[in-house]
Amino acid sequence: MVEVKDKYNIWGGRFKNQTDEIMENLNASIFFDYKLAKFDIEGSKAHTKMLAKQQILKEEEAKSILDGLDTILSEIETGNFEPKVSLEDIHMNIEARLAELIGPVAGKLHTARSRNDQVATDFRLWLRDRIDAIVDLIYELEVALVMKSSENIHTIMPGFTHLQCAQPITFAHHLLAYVSMLDRDRERYMDTRKRLNESPLGAAALAGTSFPIDPDFTARELSFSRAMMNSLDGVSSRDFALEFLSSTAICATHLSRLSEEIVIWTTSQFDFVKLSDKFTTGSSIMPQKRNPDAAELIRAKTGRVNGALITLLTVIKGLPLAYSKDLQEDKEPVFDAAETIEIVLKVMTGMIHDLKANVETMKKSSELGFSTATDLADFLVREYNLPFREAHKIVGELVLLAEEKSCTLKDLTLEDLKGGYNDLGIEALNTLSVEGSVQSRNSKGGTSPESVKRQIQYWRETLKCA
Amino acid sequence: MVEVKDKYNIWGGRFKNQTDEIMENLNASIFFDYKLAKFDIEGSKAHTKMLAKQQILKEEEAKSILDGLDTILSEIETGNFEPKVSLEDIHMNIEARLAELIGPVAGKLHTARSRNDQVATDFRLWLRDRIDAIVDLIYELEVALVMKSSENIHTIMPGFTHLQCAQPITFAHHLLAYVSMLDRDRERYMDTRKRLNESPLGAAALAGTSFPIDPDFTARELSFSRAMMNSLDGVSSRDFALEFLSSTAICATHLSRLSEEIVIWTTSQFDFVKLSDKFTTGSSIMPQKRNPDAAELIRAKTGRVNGALITLLTVIKGLPLAYSKDLQEDKEPVFDAAETIEIVLKVMTGMIHDLKANVETMKKSSELGFSTATDLADFLVREYNLPFREAHKIVGELVLLAEEKSCTLKDLTLEDLKGGYNDLGIEALNTLSVEGSVQSRNSKGGTSPESVKRQIQYWRETLKCA
Amino acid sequence: MVEVKDKYNIWGGRFKNQTDEIMENLNASIFFDYKLAKFDIEGSKAHTKMLAKQQILKEEEAKSILDGLDTILSEIETGNFEPKVSLEDIHMNIEARLAELIGPVAGKLHTARSRNDQVATDFRLWLRDRIDAIVDLIYELEVALVMKSSENIHTIMPGFTHLQCAQPITFAHHLLAYVSMLDRDRERYMDTRKRLNESPLGAAALAGTSFPIDPDFTARELSFSRAMMNSLDGVSSRDFALEFLSSTAICATHLSRLSEEIVIWTTSQFDFVKLSDKFTTGSSIMPQKRNPDAAELIRAKTGRVNGALITLLTVIKGLPLAYSKDLQEDKEPVFDAAETIEIVLKVMTGMIHDLKANVETMKKSSELGFSTATDLADFLVREYNLPFREAHKIVGELVLLAEEKSCTLKDLTLEDLKGGYNDLGIEALNTLSVEGSVQSRNSKGGTSPESVKRQIQYWRETLKCA
Amino acid sequence: MVEVKDKYNIWGGRFKNQTDEIMENLNASIFFDYKLAKFDIEGSKAHTKMLAKQQILKEEEAKSILDGLDTILSEIETGNFEPKVSLEDIHMNIEARLAELIGPVAGKLHTARSRNDQVATDFRLWLRDRIDAIVDLIYELEVALVMKSSENIHTIMPGFTHLQCAQPITFAHHLLAYVSMLDRDRERYMDTRKRLNESPLGAAALAGTSFPIDPDFTARELSFSRAMMNSLDGVSSRDFALEFLSSTAICATHLSRLSEEIVIWTTSQFDFVKLSDKFTTGSSIMPQKRNPDAAELIRAKTGRVNGALITLLTVIKGLPLAYSKDLQEDKEPVFDAAETIEIVLKVMTGMIHDLKANVETMKKSSELGFSTATDLADFLVREYNLPFREAHKIVGELVLLAEEKSCTLKDLTLEDLKGGYNDLGIEALNTLSVEGSVQSRNSKGGTSPESVKRQIQYWRETLKCA
Repeated sequence: MVEVKDKYNIWGGRFKNQTDEIMENLNASIFFDYKLAKFDIEGSKAHTKMLAKQQILKEEEAKSILDGLDTILSEIETGNFEPKVSLEDIHMNIEARLAELIGPVAGKLHTARSRNDQVATDFRLWLRDRIDAIVDLIYELEVALVMKSSENIHTIMPGFTHLQCAQPITFAHHLLAYVSMLDRDRERYMDTRKRLNESPLGAAALAGTSFPIDPDFTARELSFSRAMMNSLDGVSSRDFALEFLSSTAICATHLSRLSEEIVIWTTSQFDFVKLSDKFTTGSSIMPQKRNPDAAELIRAKTGRVNGALITLLTVIKGLPLAYSKDLQEDKEPVFDAAETIEIVLKVMTGMIHDLKANVETMKKSSELGFSTATDLADFLVREYNLPFREAHKIVGELVLLAEEKSCTLKDLTLEDLKGGYNDLGIEALNTLSVEGSVQSRNSKGGTSPESVKRQIQYWRETLKCA
Repeated sequence: MVEVKDKYNIWGGRFKNQTDEIMENLNASIFFDYKLAKFDIEGSKAHTKMLAKQQILKEEEAKSILDGLDTILSEIETGNFEPKVSLEDIHMNIEARLAELIGPVAGKLHTARSRNDQVATDFRLWLRDRIDAIVDLIYELEVALVMKSSENIHTIMPGFTHLQCAQPITFAHHLLAYVSMLDRDRERYMDTRKRLNESPLGAAALAGTSFPIDPDFTARELSFSRAMMNSLDGVSSRDFALEFLSSTAICATHLSRLSEEIVIWTTSQFDFVKLSDKFTTGSSIMPQKRNPDAAELIRAKTGRVNGALITLLTVIKGLPLAYSKDLQEDKEPVFDAAETIEIVLKVMTGMIHDLKANVETMKKSSELGFSTATDLADFLVREYNLPFREAHKIVGELVLLAEEKSCTLKDLTLEDLKGGYNDLGIEALNTLSVEGSVQSRNSKGGTSPESVKRQIQYWRETLKCA
Repeated sequence: MVEVKDKYNIWGGRFKNQTDEIMENLNASIFFDYKLAKFDIEGSKAHTKMLAKQQILKEEEAKSILDGLDTILSEIETGNFEPKVSLEDIHMNIEARLAELIGPVAGKLHTARSRNDQVATDFRLWLRDRIDAIVDLIYELEVALVMKSSENIHTIMPGFTHLQCAQPITFAHHLLAYVSMLDRDRERYMDTRKRLNESPLGAAALAGTSFPIDPDFTARELSFSRAMMNSLDGVSSRDFALEFLSSTAICATHLSRLSEEIVIWTTSQFDFVKLSDKFTTGSSIMPQKRNPDAAELIRAKTGRVNGALITLLTVIKGLPLAYSKDLQEDKEPVFDAAETIEIVLKVMTGMIHDLKANVETMKKSSELGFSTATDLADFLVREYNLPFREAHKIVGELVLLAEEKSCTLKDLTLEDLKGGYNDLGIEALNTLSVEGSVQSRNSKGGTSPESVKRQIQYWRETLKCA
Repeated sequence: MVEVKDKYNIWGGRFKNQTDEIMENLNASIFFDYKLAKFDIEGSKAHTKMLAKQQILKEEEAKSILDGLDTILSEIETGNFEPKVSLEDIHMNIEARLAELIGPVAGKLHTARSRNDQVATDFRLWLRDRIDAIVDLIYELEVALVMKSSENIHTIMPGFTHLQCAQPITFAHHLLAYVSMLDRDRERYMDTRKRLNESPLGAAALAGTSFPIDPDFTARELSFSRAMMNSLDGVSSRDFALEFLSSTAICATHLSRLSEEIVIWTTSQFDFVKLSDKFTTGSSIMPQKRNPDAAELIRAKTGRVNGALITLLTVIKGLPLAYSKDLQEDKEPVFDAAETIEIVLKVMTGMIHDLKANVETMKKSSELGFSTATDLADFLVREYNLPFREAHKIVGELVLLAEEKSCTLKDLTLEDLKGGYNDLGIEALNTLSVEGSVQSRNSKGGTSPESVKRQIQYWRETLKCA
């Protein structure tokens, strides 16, 4: 950052005194909106071409501006562009540099345009670009989960409700639940993209312009689906950013759930999975520690994204039309949320890719907590045509008995069983194996290996991954 | 609410001691989930039909259950159903009543189903129904705004940026900005609906079931687009509720902006619009007051909806699969947000419908603050081919001069003008009328009456309102 | 709720048309502010006494009003008071009832007062009362934790970091960490109470009054520390409510941490504690389940409280002075948060009181994960004067070796040890017992039984519990 | 930032593979915790002195470490310290540099300490320092407001409720409302400071230490009030940070209200105040604009602080004891909120200092909206002993009449008045002057110049400003 003397030339002739230094720091956005540089130039080029097409600029003026912008773009890409705080923001920095490069004709770039529609355009372009990246990253995590599922179709683990062993399930089935969630996340981002993909350029400060512009041409140049219908809306609305933050908060919430599970699964007490060293860290004081830091950090990042969402909702609440300076606070939360979700998606993908199931421990754990009691109840329903509620009561009493005897249901005697329901024979105990239980749940979406294979097949086709 | 003795029969035989009374109050959801009653019966009927079709239930069993459910439905609709706190929730209340009506066969309704998939189904059905209502209410507000716009195509008001007079605009143009926002809101809700419209029924507790069910049949019966792909996802996911809350928070934010404007517009200092008595209230101490309470309350309700969103995001953060009791906290924020957005949409529609523009005051106000200075700058660009930046600087100096002379730009002398830019003639002042300014901004989305008419035409066609 | 005809008499003569019915529903607060009834009467009585003392009311007028208010209070307490929606709020309902009881002199109660200062007073009185109750409930939970700690001074469990076994600790030590947190919560509420305990009565609508009132007298009557310094502040400020919500969010967050631990501790895999049946619930489908619902719900309620905090922060953001109708949205989040924290404190206290440690399982678990590795490193530092970093490295390598040999550190051979550090003898293994490890951490605040006894003694004295 | 090869030496011997690069970026905190550098050294010095006093370190070892730390401190202060990402955080960076400077004895600094208690200590020291700065900045804003009030004791403006003219007040009175709010903010921060001012040093990783440390000595060295009572609490708790964020959110909310008013007051329609050029900015397209950007940005920053609060509440929700990596996400929201509140307090102080009241416009505006109608009602109460409610109704009807006649209350005829209440004489109109109205509201906290002078006197004494 380099300070320059000739500040306050941006607002032209009306100001007699300079702004306070602390005010300048509050006001400047160049510290963060430098990220928009590339898109600012892209937008300016489209605007220039349109001005030329509409004969608002002469061909040679347009050419000069376009060349200048290309020069600046290459300065930016090579790290040779020096933004100045005194020029407030990226737009003015680029415009000032353009003036240095091509002289007063640079001033014509701002014809029929304002920073208000310019920044709205840049921001949409930037966000569209990030959404495309995020959609790809979600896709990659989905694929990693499907791959990991393929390896674990027969890996039995406890299915939990209330974190209590409920019924045995397959590890593949558990992982595929996240594929469903993530696929909706991906679709949600694509809907967000669809809605943001309109061009505000041409709204000028707020009211449109008297120059004979062609906003639909600019929209097409920038691959927007159309020019916006209302110029006030174009410069004032940030629902696209709010929707992006919502989609991100939901996705981050999904990842926080998987992270929590990984943290629990890697405890010594559960010991269900092992993370690779790449996604594990140690302790400066305890030499034995292998900490699931990556999972913890992903879980924690939810806070950050929720915070970003609340930030922008709070900023926009009660804001009159059209542009207010409050809207300058729209970018940092969005930038931070985008960066956050990208890194956590990458780390989660790596973590899932490397994760190893401790097959034996998982299976043994799946036998805890009378996990197949429901199967016995279902058996009573099927075999003896009992109403489910009655079967449930009988099995509940057998569980209590087994607990008092400190044994499993399988260890109950024939006498015990008959005490519960007189017709019960010893063959009822066959329903109590975890393998049998898992096999039997073959309904659509269920946990049986057959059902899981169908799910995997569905995702392979949908995601077009082998 | 009526207490009953026979509590704890829900969980069957395993419990020896009763739950604490305070625990029961914490645990029971019947206080709020009674809202789901109608949808619970709808879901149970579809489930029963499927069980019969699959020969899991006998025809006569199914008939008995369906008749019983219809009886309960009419009890509910006539206010003759008495829920009991001891039965925890609406599901158990209905099931218990069914048992009273048809005896033990009632217990067969719970075959191949759990409260986990049942409540997820009910909640989706309820929410789908509310989204349909909300989409209609947004539509009605859009129509009211388009109608009000039609009356105000030539009503000139100041267009604001930073709440400073920026450029004159038409009132119609201002109102139409909200139509654009609301139309995206409506579309957002429809995307939310599309994503939630899958059936979790058949997921059972978490893992699917060993009964030969047909989840796609149930889905069709309930007008869902399909049965969910993964049973764990079916009982654990609440992203549909989060997305609903996000869509609602964004919509409420839009309404808060319009409300803020109405509050400002109805001040004695602005005096732009007059609200009808129907949407105005008085003061218990100040006899003269006419307060825009409706607008203030709509503005404030944003807080409530943002709070509901944060509530559910916080609840779901880090929650392991599958169902956890935490998820019981999903309903109240969603119920409250739905009720809130419905009432504020209705009130806003009424308020807009009745609102009268103070045409003269608005127009006079639009002349404040040198609002046509940009037009003069644009004139300099067009007439003398000055770069916009230079024109901007010249006009800025003329504004400063006018301010020092306590006059408007129109009142400047030829000498004054030439002091700014030597070629300027007195005809430049013609650019300074607010009517001319508004007329000239005829670009797509701009504020000119012609442009606004095109926008109204677009909305009439899109919204199919005459 | 009973509707009455004579509505709109509240705002007196200025209104010609009635408010819209939907508007009335939006506007009325009687649905929730009925809770303030008792405090409204308390405030009115103090105001009446002051008016009499200042000779603004005649003695007999004051007496008539005070008697009428007492009658209404007893109607409220006996459930014989029927609020009417048409009268908007509790204040108007009481005033209208007073008029029924004592005739037109009732109208004199509103002399030198407005609903604006009245509601601010009522709300502060109500909240002060709830804070006192909450402070007591926190105290009771602290006592329950201290008592449970006393029973578990020698109960060894794993101390976790990253939910990985880090070092053995005592269960008492773990529970006492929450006493420290809760004691700060209690203090925080008391600071909140201190700051809210000022009287806004006398602020009237916003600007004070021309009647010769004595606000400090009213303040004393209501046990406020003083009358507020500025009438605009009196009717406009709600930082006392925000601070209450913040204190509640922090307390709820603490409880969510303990709840999460209880959920984890009651899994079959951890099996550290057993909850009583009173705080456990079952499953409608899985007969064997004993779910820690109470803990899950307490954890989830954090969301609700965070939501309430965001609700009110959002409402108040950017609100001009003095009273705006938005402030009507201040009560529900506060009411809900107060009720929530009270119930979860009660349930947590009961749950802790009944909770039983599975002493053997905990101890066995404390030996997992090489939990005493730090002790060996500390031994190397003490005995051989190694820098801690070097000792840490040596032990890390021994852990890796033990893991490869699938044994514990205690099972390493002398040769193994010497491979790590040549001077090590077999006596080093003595440092590896969990009892020894716990005993040794006797620093202030540490986990040794001696240290824990000192902590318990401190709390017994501080909390004055035997 | 400089990368180094010798990474992974922090966690010693247990790790065989390196962490993933993306994981490293996620994990490293040096990007933001570099801010703690000075306090980390301060804490390390206190720890070293304690270790020496307790003879855990030899005198010469301690001296060497202290000298090394001083060297690093001066490197930091002169900008000659180069942190390395591979060393993760500020603690390891300083320790590694210490090892370079003084050799292996550097490793002894970590005796009886862990990064867990170290970072908790650093963070508390840093935050205590910022609170002290913030408390001073609030004080300065209070003084600026008191000074501006002193100049405006007789400046009459409309007092608003619902942003409608309610009753005339003095500008001084309005500004002093904010002094009351800010003074509570200041007190709130001081309570936050009081509660955070305990030393976690000595907690080690989580369980205390077997070394014979003296945590109270360290506490005194660092000006903490005492060492913490429980080591698990010491490393796990972040309520001090949550409370700081809450206090900041409340303060930011207060500032957002004043900012909103400034935005409204500087509109052409209100035109109540003029900001200095130092706190005003222009437009790149509209040459005439003078935008209250500073006020808008302060208003918007509320969002940022609310977001930070939600971030940390979300992070800590449901986090088991003791340290989890999630807690690394505690710093950025706190750093950002502290920086934000400091800058907005500074800018607000400057803005208030420079602000000029447009005395005439304000006074004229105070006569709008029948603002003295309450005074007429009070007159009816006093003169004719009418119940307030009846007086209110009479005046309401007179307002309606005046509105129909498009005149003010003062312009009503004797006949008009008698139509409202037969005993009314023309002298009643004397109550309708805004000066008289303001003068009359002389109750404690009221708006009369006398009352306001008493308030100013109180603040001059309390704040000790002349």
